[in-house]
Amino acid sequence: MKSQITNALSDFFFEYETPRQVLVRNRRVGVVCRIIQLGVLAYIIGWVFIYEKGYQSTDTAVSSVYTKMKGVGYTSVNGTERVWDVADYVFPSQGSSSFVVMTNYIITEGQEMGKCPELPGKHNCSSDADCEGGRYRRTAHGEMTGVCVDSTKTCEVLAWCPVENDHNIPDPPLLISAENYTLFIKNSVTFPLFGVTRSNLVEGIDSSYIRRCLYHPKDAPLCPIFRLGDIVQQSGFSIENIAKEGGAIGIVVDWTCNFDVAVKHCKPKYNFHGLYGHPDEKDKVKASVGYNFRYAKHYIENGTEKRTLLKVFGIRFDIIVQSLARKFDIIPTLTAIGSGVGIFGVATVVC
Amino acid sequence: MKSQITNALSDFFFEYETPRQVLVRNRRVGVVCRIIQLGVLAYIIGWVFIYEKGYQSTDTAVSSVYTKMKGVGYTSVNGTERVWDVADYVFPSQGSSSFVVMTNYIITEGQEMGKCPELPGKHNCSSDADCEGGRYRRTAHGEMTGVCVDSTKTCEVLAWCPVENDHNIPDPPLLISAENYTLFIKNSVTFPLFGVTRSNLVEGIDSSYIRRCLYHPKDAPLCPIFRLGDIVQQSGFSIENIAKEGGAIGIVVDWTCNFDVAVKHCKPKYNFHGLYGHPDEKDKVKASVGYNFRYAKHYIENGTEKRTLLKVFGIRFDIIVQSLARKFDIIPTLTAIGSGVGIFGVATVVC
Amino acid sequence: MKSQITNALSDFFFEYETPRQVLVRNRRVGVVCRIIQLGVLAYIIGWVFIYEKGYQSTDTAVSSVYTKMKGVGYTSVNGTERVWDVADYVFPSQGSSSFVVMTNYIITEGQEMGKCPELPGKHNCSSDADCEGGRYRRTAHGEMTGVCVDSTKTCEVLAWCPVENDHNIPDPPLLISAENYTLFIKNSVTFPLFGVTRSNLVEGIDSSYIRRCLYHPKDAPLCPIFRLGDIVQQSGFSIENIAKEGGAIGIVVDWTCNFDVAVKHCKPKYNFHGLYGHPDEKDKVKASVGYNFRYAKHYIENGTEKRTLLKVFGIRFDIIVQSLARKFDIIPTLTAIGSGVGIFGVATVVC
Repeated sequence: MKSQITNALSDFFFEYETPRQVLVRNRRVGVVCRIIQLGVLAYIIGWVFIYEKGYQSTDTAVSSVYTKMKGVGYTSVNGTERVWDVADYVFPSQGSSSFVVMTNYIITEGQEMGKCPELPGKHNCSSDADCEGGRYRRTAHGEMTGVCVDSTKTCEVLAWCPVENDHNIPDPPLLISAENYTLFIKNSVTFPLFGVTRSNLVEGIDSSYIRRCLYHPKDAPLCPIFRLGDIVQQSGFSIENIAKEGGAIGIVVDWTCNFDVAVKHCKPKYNFHGLYGHPDEKDKVKASVGYNFRYAKHYIENGTEKRTLLKVFGIRFDIIVQSLARKFDIIPTLTAIGSGVGIFGVATVVC
Repeated sequence: MKSQITNALSDFFFEYETPRQVLVRNRRVGVVCRIIQLGVLAYIIGWVFIYEKGYQSTDTAVSSVYTKMKGVGYTSVNGTERVWDVADYVFPSQGSSSFVVMTNYIITEGQEMGKCPELPGKHNCSSDADCEGGRYRRTAHGEMTGVCVDSTKTCEVLAWCPVENDHNIPDPPLLISAENYTLFIKNSVTFPLFGVTRSNLVEGIDSSYIRRCLYHPKDAPLCPIFRLGDIVQQSGFSIENIAKEGGAIGIVVDWTCNFDVAVKHCKPKYNFHGLYGHPDEKDKVKASVGYNFRYAKHYIENGTEKRTLLKVFGIRFDIIVQSLARKFDIIPTLTAIGSGVGIFGVATVVC
Repeated sequence: MKSQITNALSDFFFEYETPRQVLVRNRRVGVVCRIIQLGVLAYIIGWVFIYEKGYQSTDTAVSSVYTKMKGVGYTSVNGTERVWDVADYVFPSQGSSSFVVMTNYIITEGQEMGKCPELPGKHNCSSDADCEGGRYRRTAHGEMTGVCVDSTKTCEVLAWCPVENDHNIPDPPLLISAENYTLFIKNSVTFPLFGVTRSNLVEGIDSSYIRRCLYHPKDAPLCPIFRLGDIVQQSGFSIENIAKEGGAIGIVVDWTCNFDVAVKHCKPKYNFHGLYGHPDEKDKVKASVGYNFRYAKHYIENGTEKRTLLKVFGIRFDIIVQSLARKFDIIPTLTAIGSGVGIFGVATVVC
C-alpha cells in the first residue's frame, strides 16, 4: 500500500512529459515563423518593457497647495491716488489653490436700498404699463415698482441705488501694474501607494534661495516664486487684453516621478495655459475671454446701511497638481510577461 | 568552422518543430471540447472587445470650473423692503466651483462686545455658582463672567451682545425667490494622455445661443445656464424644504468620451443629486438635511466696533467634474489578446 | 455534397487532437520541473488572488465635504477684553473642505490712504536720492513719493497709513484657546462604477450620538466631531508652535472598501498629518512652518474710507478624501488567470 503511494509520488516527481516533435524542413514557413516570433519578442521586450515600462506600477498623489501674493498696485482715478495691497486685490484672501487677482474694476460708491430708474438702453419703457410692479427681469438690478421714469425712459426699480453702470470698462486697465506682482506657491504631494511625500521646496531650494530667486523656465525652473507678467505671457495671453476684461489661467504643477531611482530626482515641472478656451477660435473673444464678479463692502453712514459695489475684473489662477509616479512591481511585470507569452503562443500557432 | 555556424543558422531558420498529433475519435469529449473553446472565443471577442472595450486605453481629465449667478431676491420683513443681488447672496463671491446661495437667514443687528445673559433654555442657572467665571461651554456664545442673571435665569457671558437667537427659523424661507436665479457654468477639461482640451461651450454653443437658452434635460441638454428651481427639483428636493434649512446639491458634469470617433462628439452631460444623504432614511431629516454658517459684516458706529451677524441658510452647490476618455491603444489590445489566448490554453488543457 | 458537410462537421465536433507525449525518466530535471510549476501555481493563487486581489476591479470616489467649527476664543490685549466666535476666526466662512482657523494675529487699526514713512530697518535711505519717486520695491508697503523721512531714515510711501509693523509676532499666541474648538466634518462619497453612495455618518452615527461624542482613535473612531488640540497633536505638531506662526494640517478621510461584503462595512478612517514638510529637517523651521495671510475690514469714518488690517496666523485644514473600492469582476479575474497560465507555459517551456 505504502509502496504504491511512494511509487506514485516518485512517478509524479521523477517523470515528466514532453511532446514528441517532428522536424519539418521548409524554407518559406520556417523563415516566416522565425520572423514572426522575433517580432513578437522584440515587441514584448522593446515596447512593453522599455517604452511602456510595463514592469512598473503607477500611483497618483494627494496634494495640498498654499499660495501667497506680493506687490502693490497704484491707481490715480480723476485725481484721487490710491494704493492696492494684497488685502485689497486677492480673492479669497486665505491663500487657497484657486484665487483671483484684481486687474480692473468698476466701482459704484454709496449705494443704498431705494427706488431709482434702471440704466438707459436696457429696460426701456414708454409708459407705466411696460413696468409691471412686483416683477423683475433676470438681467434687471431690482424689483420693478410699476413706474416708468420719464427722464431716462426706463422702469423704476427697488434696488441698491444708484444702480451700477458697467457699460464701459476702464481701458487701459486700472491695475495693469498687476504684472509686477509675484506669486509664491507651496505645494506638497503624497503618493500613498509608495509612501513618499514631496514638497516643491525640493533639496537646495532653501529660504535664502527663495528670498532672491524668480522663476524662469530655463535659468530657475525650480524657484517657487513667479512674476504675474511672466505667467500671463507664457500661457499665451497679452497682459493688456487679459487685464482689461479678466481671464483664467491654469498653473500645472507636474510631478512625473520614477521611484526606481533616488527620490531626490522627483522634482516638479511648472507649465501655464489659458483655461476655458472655446473650440472654434473665431468665437473665442465673445464666449470665453472675460472673468468678473461682483463684490460689496458694507458700512453704516448716519444710521443707514450703505455699500460700495465693486465689479471686479481679474485673472483667476487655478493651481492644478498633476502627478504620476512609477515604481518596479512584480505583479505588472509578470502580467506583462504572461500575456507576452500568450501572444508568442499565437505566433507559433499561426505557423 | 564558418560552415558550421551557417549550418546552425540555416537549421534555426529553415527548420521548425511541430508536435505530432494523435487524432482521437470520441463523441462526448469532442463535443465538450469544442463548446468550451467556442465559449472562450465568444468571451474574448464579445465581452473583452465589444463590451469592455479591452482594446482602448483610458484617461481622466484635469478640469477647471467658473460659475456665475444672475437674478435678484426680494424680502419684506416687518415693513422694511429689501432687494438682494449677487453681491449679497453668493458665498464666496469669486465664482468658484463650490459655493453657497443664501435662501434664508436669521439676522442679528448691531452686535457689540459686551456682557449679556445667555439665551433662555440653553444655559440655565439658579445661582452664580452655576456660572463658573472665566470658563465657557462648547455651545455657549461667550465666556462666562460668573454672574447668573435673574431676569432670564441664564449665565451672563462676555460676547457679541445681544447674543443671536436662532431658535425659530423663518418659515416660509425669506428668499424662496432664489428658485428663479440662474446659474452659468463654464467648465474646461484637459485629457493629458491624449492631449485633448474641451470646453462645455462646445461647437454651436456660441454667445448668442447662451444669451437666450435655458438648460432642459431633453430640449437644451447642452445649454450651460441652469435655473435654480430646476436643479433643486431634478436632484429630488422640494424648494420649500431645502430653502428653509439649507442643503447641498452636487452638479455632476460627466465627460465620457471616445476619441476613436471625432472629438466634436465629446460633449458633457449634466446631472444633479443631493449630497450628504444618510444611509437609513428614517434619520435623514435629523442628521443630514440643513446647511448653514455664520457670517458677519463689521462697521464702526461712533467709535465702537459693531457687527451685523447673519446666520445664513443656503444651498451649497458642488460642481463635480467626472471624466473618462477612451482611445485605441496597442498595449491593452495585445494584453487582452494575450491573456485571452492563455485562457484558451486552459480550455484545451482541460480536454 | 450535403453528406460531406455533415462529415466535416462531425469530424470537427467528434474528433480532437492531442499531442503524443513521451515519458522521460530523469530525477534531476523532473524535480526541478515540478518545483518550478508548483512555485508558479503558488504565486498565481497565493499572491495574485489572495494578496493582490487580482479578481477584483477597483474604483475611486467623487466626494463632497462640509465642515463646521464650534467654540469661542477669548483675548485680553492691554486691557480690552474680546471674544472671538466662528464668524470671526474661520476663513472662509461657508464651511468648505479647506479653511483656516485663526490662532494668532497682528492688528493694525484705523489705516487710511496717505503718505507715511516705511518701517525702520527695511527700506533705509540717507537722502531723497535713495527713494526714487513713482517706483516701489516688491516688499514695500506702497509707492515711493521720492522723499526720505529724517526721523525714521526710511523712504516715504503712498500707502495705507500707518504701515503695518509685523516685526514681532505675539508670543504666547493670542488665540491659543483655539485648541478647544471642535470641528464637525460631513463627508459623502459616491463610487460611480459600483453605484454606491456613502456618508461618514454611517449606520449608528445618528444625531443623538453626534450631540455628545468626540473623536478618539480608539474609543470613538467614527465620531465626526474633532477637538482641534487632538488633531494638531496627532499630526505631530505642538499647539504652542503651530498656533504662533501658523501651519497646515491634512485631515485624510480614508475610504478603503470591499463591496464583496455588505456595504455597511464600508466605513471611513480618519488620520492627520502636517503638510508642506521640507525634505531636509534642518531647514524645516525656516522654510515650511508658518501660515499667514492679510485680511482687511473696511469702514467709513466721517467720510473717509478706513480699514482694520489683520495679519492672520492660523492653521489651515485640508480635508483630503482618499478612496479605493474593490468588487469582484470577471474581466480582471480572467486576465489574471490568463497571464498566470502564460507564465505557467514559460515554466514548462523551461523544462
